[in-house]
Amino acid sequence: MAKEKKLVEAITSMDQDFTQWYTDVVKKAELIDYSSVRGCMIIKPYGYAIWELIQKQLDQRFKDTGHENVYMPMFIPESLLQKEKDHVEGFAPEVAWVTHGGSDKLTERLCVRPTSETLFCDHYANIIQSYRDLPKLYNQWCSVVRWEKTTRPFLRSLEFLWQEGHTAHATAEEAEEETIKMLNVYAEFCENVLAIPMVKGQKTEKEKFAGAKATYTIESLMHDGKALQSGTTHNFGDGFAKAFGIQYTDKENKLQYVHQTSWGMTTRLIGAVIMVHGDDSGLVLPPSIAPIEVIIVPIMQKKEGVLEKAAELKTALSKIARVKVDDSDKSPGWKFAEYEMKGVPVRVEIGPKDIENNQAVIVRRDTREKTIVALDQLEKEVKELLEKMQIDLLNKALTHRNEHTYGATNMDEFTKIVDETPGFIKAMWCGDEACENAIKEQTGATARCMPFEQENVGTTCVSCGEPAKSLVYWGRSY
Amino acid sequence: MAKEKKLVEAITSMDQDFTQWYTDVVKKAELIDYSSVRGCMIIKPYGYAIWELIQKQLDQRFKDTGHENVYMPMFIPESLLQKEKDHVEGFAPEVAWVTHGGSDKLTERLCVRPTSETLFCDHYANIIQSYRDLPKLYNQWCSVVRWEKTTRPFLRSLEFLWQEGHTAHATAEEAEEETIKMLNVYAEFCENVLAIPMVKGQKTEKEKFAGAKATYTIESLMHDGKALQSGTTHNFGDGFAKAFGIQYTDKENKLQYVHQTSWGMTTRLIGAVIMVHGDDSGLVLPPSIAPIEVIIVPIMQKKEGVLEKAAELKTALSKIARVKVDDSDKSPGWKFAEYEMKGVPVRVEIGPKDIENNQAVIVRRDTREKTIVALDQLEKEVKELLEKMQIDLLNKALTHRNEHTYGATNMDEFTKIVDETPGFIKAMWCGDEACENAIKEQTGATARCMPFEQENVGTTCVSCGEPAKSLVYWGRSY
Repeated sequence: MAKEKKLVEAITSMDQDFTQWYTDVVKKAELIDYSSVRGCMIIKPYGYAIWELIQKQLDQRFKDTGHENVYMPMFIPESLLQKEKDHVEGFAPEVAWVTHGGSDKLTERLCVRPTSETLFCDHYANIIQSYRDLPKLYNQWCSVVRWEKTTRPFLRSLEFLWQEGHTAHATAEEAEEETIKMLNVYAEFCENVLAIPMVKGQKTEKEKFAGAKATYTIESLMHDGKALQSGTTHNFGDGFAKAFGIQYTDKENKLQYVHQTSWGMTTRLIGAVIMVHGDDSGLVLPPSIAPIEVIIVPIMQKKEGVLEKAAELKTALSKIARVKVDDSDKSPGWKFAEYEMKGVPVRVEIGPKDIENNQAVIVRRDTREKTIVALDQLEKEVKELLEKMQIDLLNKALTHRNEHTYGATNMDEFTKIVDETPGFIKAMWCGDEACENAIKEQTGATARCMPFEQENVGTTCVSCGEPAKSLVYWGRSY
Repeated sequence: MAKEKKLVEAITSMDQDFTQWYTDVVKKAELIDYSSVRGCMIIKPYGYAIWELIQKQLDQRFKDTGHENVYMPMFIPESLLQKEKDHVEGFAPEVAWVTHGGSDKLTERLCVRPTSETLFCDHYANIIQSYRDLPKLYNQWCSVVRWEKTTRPFLRSLEFLWQEGHTAHATAEEAEEETIKMLNVYAEFCENVLAIPMVKGQKTEKEKFAGAKATYTIESLMHDGKALQSGTTHNFGDGFAKAFGIQYTDKENKLQYVHQTSWGMTTRLIGAVIMVHGDDSGLVLPPSIAPIEVIIVPIMQKKEGVLEKAAELKTALSKIARVKVDDSDKSPGWKFAEYEMKGVPVRVEIGPKDIENNQAVIVRRDTREKTIVALDQLEKEVKELLEKMQIDLLNKALTHRNEHTYGATNMDEFTKIVDETPGFIKAMWCGDEACENAIKEQTGATARCMPFEQENVGTTCVSCGEPAKSLVYWGRSY
């Protein structure tokens, strides 16, 4: 048990230094490693396996809602990036520029895509002619680059992996419907797969995407009370269509502009999982995205029959979950700590005494609750436990968020919450960007969203005292 | 049927102009579109769906052989690229250089990865310490960039999608074993999934990968008699390990260099499928990678019960294959031509008369053979037909390759074959690069590989007449 202690002690405690705890977990759970390229991370096998499980389940949802995957070039010619003026203003300051191919200087600079609206628009202008060509419901999985000054693994990096949906529709109504539909797909995925509850709402003008008419967002609350923007969907109206000339002839043979949307989620979701479910022993993974759902640890594995029994249990449990036996020569204590660090949801211990009694010990990662289970009940019990953990993790996160969501009716209350009990702050807003800026300056909190579920936390703007237009969720954020 | 004819006539015939035929097929089967970025293609939904099926089946083979997926940064600092001298010489002339991030000039240029040996080596130097850390069996799926002067969809483009395996081993023997093992995985995949037979062999010194000790290759023969390098595996020995300082302590506590390999296959495989199986009506897809394996075309679909029956057949057939019903208002003739162009393996026609007779018409894409099948036998018959087509396509390609593989014992014979009956040329070689160069200059043919299955086609070098060292497959290539 000495080694186990040592390994656990190697992580900074969450309450002591949350930032350091996070960095410790991403390294020690072997999710990422740093590379020689500033701000670019290496996603290691265990981290990438989590991403593959996220991708697979998200991709299925995209296909189920009629979307098709495509692949666009990673380069955008400078002239193409400049076609939509809000968009280029938003992104030009943070793109990487390719100026040479081999030893030749390029006649036009190419940027590495920070996002691909301009490429999709260029393509849509070519392939959309008639109302029969609509809607176009495309998605792509790729990496994008944004030249960030400060970076953190998964949360903010120069290069990150994501999916970007880009759709074109005949009418404004259809585009708006798509934008909301995909926000709901995102929220449902986060709740049921990642076990993270989301607040759904609209971004303010100040916070919306460069070039969008409206941006919708799902916002989650991390363990330390900071908010994380977890996914966004954008309704472009016909702004990009006008800039790129994307027109179709309608049923009356009249030329119309299309209405477009885009939406994206990224490897940042892995950061959310870490910061919502993790604890001082490391990662805690919801079973749905755990590369190993069940780790079998043989006890006194040199005794006759133990490894055979462990292998037998693996075969049985593999029917219902992703299972691994660790039969390495490390001590059981080391293994317990190792797989706790990696957030494996369920541990099964099997030793000579267990075999004698026809039983196994099962331990759940989140509560550390131990149960002794008869071997003929193991498959059923583990299955139920995995299902229960998935739900319990969501409920625990929901309770945490509810306990850390506060109402504020004046700036004194607001500031006190930000300083003393960080979390979501519900406060009324007049709709004026000046107040949004003032709040940010005073408290560091930004408008996370105007939630779809509006309530009254007073009637006047928390900042200026003028009549309020809407409720806003505020918070410091990643 | 007028429309069907028109659609088919829109493609150039293979025999008339193979290059134009290829371009017509990639466009009209909706595999790709051109983009605003020179040499970069847009992979459209149908083309990308083929790639997803390739990825899925290849990835499963990598996992079954113990490999793990990771993700490395897309940028390589110039100093890192330069660490292995043969490697930088090979790739520096064809990389894209990033010189600016936002408005700031970078202190060191970054190239967009043309391949990621240097990044993996840098990472391995950090994470490999002991023999316990070996082997490392990593793979990544990503896009890479090579600044090619002339480009063709799938076959040669500035950016392409691929997988790159990178492994590190304790001994030279293990590295060699891995290199051959993955070549065999590639060949088995190409034969059983893509239905393309492969010649396995070793590249000559001249043709091997920049920085490798040995490169192995699988080579296939296209319909026009040109060769296509379809996948390569490289044994690096300890060359990269020495350049990057990748050392481990062995069981005797002595410092040793690791031995490394890399191996890759790309979206070029889709080009191979087109050029091996396609015909004058368009694409012909092996069922294993067909996004739609069965297209159901309702005949006289406005008649009562036809669409209902088509939907019923779809439900039944979906148990055994990827199935689509085209119930659009296009004519059956248009639909026949459309799905022939897209290479859908099996067409099922169902109309009022068929329903009356409790039957359907099934047509296979490759031979166009029509069969009338009783509805209660449809599922079984279609399943068998798909399996049969998969095998028949491989056999047909094998026959074509055998009929276009020739022996040459002197340069007259060699030149005559290249000019008049293009295909693989088996000819002996002395091992001297001067002869390899002379042959290329005289005929345009390059050494495709020294096949593992050596034979004697004479005893002297086809070029210089000196004693031969090995049999070589020669050919003009893509």
